[in-house]
Amino acid sequence: MTLQNLTLKRGNGLNLYRQLVGELERAIKAGDLKDGERLPSERQLAAQLGLSRTTVVSSYRELESRGLVRGHVGRGTFVCASSEAIDAPFAWRGKVSAETALLNNSPAAHDLLRHSANPDLISFASLMPALECFPTNEYRRAVDQVIKSHSTEGFGVGPTEGQPKLRRLLARRFRVKPEQVLIVSGAQQGLDLVARCLLDPGDAVIIDRPGYIGAIQNFRAAGAKLIGWDVMRSDLGELEDLILRYRPKLICTNPTFQNPTGRTLPLTQRQELLALAARYRVPVIEDDPYRDTALTVTPPPALFQLDTSNTVISLGTFSKTLAPGLRLGWLLASEYVVDQLALIKGRQILFSGGLEQLALAELLENGTYDSHLVRLRAQHMERWNVMKRALEQHMPVRAVAFSFPLGGLHLWCRLQNGVASAQLFRLSLSKGVALVSGEVFYADSGAGRHEFRLCFTSVPAGKIEVGIKRLAEAVQAAESDSSRRQNSFVPLV
Amino acid sequence: MTLQNLTLKRGNGLNLYRQLVGELERAIKAGDLKDGERLPSERQLAAQLGLSRTTVVSSYRELESRGLVRGHVGRGTFVCASSEAIDAPFAWRGKVSAETALLNNSPAAHDLLRHSANPDLISFASLMPALECFPTNEYRRAVDQVIKSHSTEGFGVGPTEGQPKLRRLLARRFRVKPEQVLIVSGAQQGLDLVARCLLDPGDAVIIDRPGYIGAIQNFRAAGAKLIGWDVMRSDLGELEDLILRYRPKLICTNPTFQNPTGRTLPLTQRQELLALAARYRVPVIEDDPYRDTALTVTPPPALFQLDTSNTVISLGTFSKTLAPGLRLGWLLASEYVVDQLALIKGRQILFSGGLEQLALAELLENGTYDSHLVRLRAQHMERWNVMKRALEQHMPVRAVAFSFPLGGLHLWCRLQNGVASAQLFRLSLSKGVALVSGEVFYADSGAGRHEFRLCFTSVPAGKIEVGIKRLAEAVQAAESDSSRRQNSFVPLV
Repeated sequence: MTLQNLTLKRGNGLNLYRQLVGELERAIKAGDLKDGERLPSERQLAAQLGLSRTTVVSSYRELESRGLVRGHVGRGTFVCASSEAIDAPFAWRGKVSAETALLNNSPAAHDLLRHSANPDLISFASLMPALECFPTNEYRRAVDQVIKSHSTEGFGVGPTEGQPKLRRLLARRFRVKPEQVLIVSGAQQGLDLVARCLLDPGDAVIIDRPGYIGAIQNFRAAGAKLIGWDVMRSDLGELEDLILRYRPKLICTNPTFQNPTGRTLPLTQRQELLALAARYRVPVIEDDPYRDTALTVTPPPALFQLDTSNTVISLGTFSKTLAPGLRLGWLLASEYVVDQLALIKGRQILFSGGLEQLALAELLENGTYDSHLVRLRAQHMERWNVMKRALEQHMPVRAVAFSFPLGGLHLWCRLQNGVASAQLFRLSLSKGVALVSGEVFYADSGAGRHEFRLCFTSVPAGKIEVGIKRLAEAVQAAESDSSRRQNSFVPLV
Repeated sequence: MTLQNLTLKRGNGLNLYRQLVGELERAIKAGDLKDGERLPSERQLAAQLGLSRTTVVSSYRELESRGLVRGHVGRGTFVCASSEAIDAPFAWRGKVSAETALLNNSPAAHDLLRHSANPDLISFASLMPALECFPTNEYRRAVDQVIKSHSTEGFGVGPTEGQPKLRRLLARRFRVKPEQVLIVSGAQQGLDLVARCLLDPGDAVIIDRPGYIGAIQNFRAAGAKLIGWDVMRSDLGELEDLILRYRPKLICTNPTFQNPTGRTLPLTQRQELLALAARYRVPVIEDDPYRDTALTVTPPPALFQLDTSNTVISLGTFSKTLAPGLRLGWLLASEYVVDQLALIKGRQILFSGGLEQLALAELLENGTYDSHLVRLRAQHMERWNVMKRALEQHMPVRAVAFSFPLGGLHLWCRLQNGVASAQLFRLSLSKGVALVSGEVFYADSGAGRHEFRLCFTSVPAGKIEVGIKRLAEAVQAAESDSSRRQNSFVPLV
C-alpha cells in the first residue's frame, strides 16, 4: 500500500480520526510504510482525504506517542517502526518528571549510604554513634512491654503528629506544649516537610556553607535558590547583607557541633542571628542533631530556647545518640507550624511507626535514655582520643589540618598540599577505608575539593588505628601521585 | 518629628538606604510617626532628601517586611506600628508556600486519622485488619532475635532500597529480581514517590472514581489534573477515550477489592487495560494492598504479573494483613524505576526502619506470615458474617444498599432516600460510631454525597452488632431529619 489508495469510510458514528490512525498503524506494521519513510505533510494528506488538518495532526501525534513515527521540525514526519516496536521495553527514562531528571543526576547522599552498607570496609563515612552502647536489654524490655500491653496503639493506625505519650515526654524535656512537638521518621523527614511547607520554586534559602548534604538536596528538590553563609566566619554582618540582598524565605543552620565543620555558634552570635531573623521576619530552621553528643563542654542554649519571637523551627533526632535505624526524630515549632507540617506528613507516609515511638517513650520515661547518654559520652571520648593519637602518629607531617570539636560525631579535615579529596576518597576506598569528600557539603560546585570529613564515633577503638593507618597510606599515595602529576606538567623550557 | 526635618548624613561608607530605614524605624517606634499615618509618596521623599527613587522604594519595602508599614496599591504607604510590633507572634500563616496554602485547606485524611485515635468510639472508619490476630509471640521472638544477633544491620544506617534480606524474600514471593523490589514505609510512601518521580505540575492522571483518598491527595499535591475513570462500570472504551483526550502521564488503579467500592477487575479487562497502557505507553500504578485479604475467592493475577511490556509499578503493604503501625510496604517495578524512586526516598527519609524490616523478613522466612494469613482470613470471614447479619437485622428497610465483596476490609454503602452521608457521619459520631463519608473518595466535588464506607474487619465480632445498631439509629434519625427538612421546603400553594 502507498498512501495514494488510502480511503476512509464515512457515515454516522464512524470516527475518521480513529480510522486514519488504525490504517496508518496497520500499514506500518505490515511494512507497507517502510522504516525511515517520510509521510506526506499534514496539509497534503488532509487535502487528499478530505479531512480537516486538525484530524491529521492529531493522528500523526497519536502515532508518535505510540513510537511508530517521529516528527522533526521543518523536515516532516518519518516512520520509525523498527526502532521502537510496540512491545519494546517500556521507555521509562522518558517518563520521569523534569525535577527528577534534574535532581537524580547527582546522587551523592545515596552513594554514601551504599558504601556504608559494605561490611568489609572500615567506614569513617556515615555519622553514627557507637552502636555498641545501644541499651539493647532495656530496649528489648521496652519493645516487649509495648507488644504485650499497648499492641493496639503500637500496631494500629496512629496519629500523624506522633504517639501522645512520646510527644508529652519530649514536650516536658524541652519545656514546650505537646502540641508544639511533631514526631518525624528521622530529622531528614523534618527538613523535607519544612521545605515542602515553606518553599515555592525560586525562593532563596540561606544555608550553612559548608553544610549538611541532606539539607542541600532537599531544598534544591523544592526548587530553592541556595545561598551559602560561611560557617567558619559566622559573620552576622554578612548574614544581614545576604538577607537584604536575597530576601530569603528561610535560614537553615546547624549551630551546635555543625556538620561537617564541627563549629559551635557562640551565645552572642546566636542572639544576634535571632535578632536579625525577627527583624527581617525570616523563619529559622535550627538543625540540631548533635546537641546531646557534647563531650566535655556544655554548648550554649539552642536557638529554639533563646528565641522570643516564635521564629524558630528546631529539629532533633535519636539517630545520633541511640541508633539511626530507629528512624525517629522530633520537630519543635509553634502549634500552627506543627499542624501544617502534619498535614503534609500525612499525605506522605500517614504516620510514623508506633512500636518504636512507644518503646522510645518508655526509655525516656524510665531514665534509660539519660543514663545511656552518659555511657555514650564516655565511649565517644575514648574514640576521640584514640583517633587523635592515631592521626598525630601516622599522618604524614603537614599533610592534613584537622579540627577536633569536643562534640558531634566528626572531624573536619583539610588536605594541605594540593591533593584533591576526591582522589583521596578513591585511594582510601581501594585500601578499605571510607570517608566523605568535601564537595558534597557545598551547594556551589568547585568548592570543598581539598576537604573531607571523618566520623570518630562509629568505629570501635580497636579498629580506629587500623583505619587511620590505611588513610595515612592513602594520603601519602595521593601526595606522591599529585606531585608526580604536577611534575609531568612542568614545561620543557 | 515630622519627615520635614529628616536629614541623612552623607560621606564615604555611609549607606543612605540603611540610614533612611533606621530613621523611619526610630520615628515609628518613638511614636513620631503615628499608627495609620500616611508616609509621603516615594517620589516626594526622594526629591525632598535628594535620593534616588529606588532607594526610597527599597526602604519602604524593607519596613513593610518588618511589619512597620503597609503599602496599599493606589493609596500609598501607611504606618501600622501598633498592629504588628516587631515582637508580635511570628506571622507563620503568611509564610507557607502556595502549594501548602492550597492543599492544607481540605484535610480529609488527616481528620480521619484523628477520629480513629479516640478509643471510646466504635470505629468502622480506618481500614485495619483484625489486630487481635497479629502473631504477637512470633513477632516478639523475631524482634528479639534481630536485636540480639543483627543489631548493626537493624540499628545502623541501612540501604535506602531496603534490607537485602527482606528484598530477597519478597522478590522470591513475587518471582522478580531483588533489584526490582523497593521497601517503602507504607504503600502511601510508594504513591508519594511515584507522584514525585513521574509527575510535572499540570500533568493529567487517570485515577479510580471513586478511589483512595491518599492517592487523590498525593497526585493533587504533585500538581496533577485528576481524571476519574468510573470504577463500577470499568469500561475500557471509556478508558481509551480518556487516554486519547487527556494524554495522561499515568493511570493509577486499585484492581483488587478496590477501596472504597470493593470491586475486582476481571481478567479480560485487566488484559485489555494492559494492552491500552502498552499501546499508548502510559505507566500503570497498580495499588494492590488487599490482594492477600481474599476471603473465599481467588482474585485474578495482579496487573504486574500479567504485564509483558514493563509498564506496571505495583504497590503492596503489610498494613492490611499484619498491622498498619509497622509502616512497611513494598513496590515492584523495573530496576530503572526502583533506582529513581530510591534516590527520591533517600532525600525524604534516608531509609526505612531496620528492626521492623528484619523482623518481617524473619516472619516471611519461617512461614509465620503465611499461616497468619490463614487465621486472619477465618477471623475476617466471621466478622463479615456478623456484620452482614447485623445490617440485615437492624437497618431500616430499603434505607441503604450495600456491596459485600468477598475480600478487602470494607463494604461500600449507598443511602437510598436522599439522606446525605455527611449528615449521617455527624449523627453517627454523636452516637459513638465512625464511618467514612463518600465525598472524600471523589476528586470532583459534589459526588459521593449519599455513599459511605464501613470497615468490617477491625472491630471485634462482639462489638460489631452494637456499632451497627448505633449506625441504624443514626440512619433512622437522618432519614426523619431529612424528610422533615424536605417538608419544611414544600411551597405553601
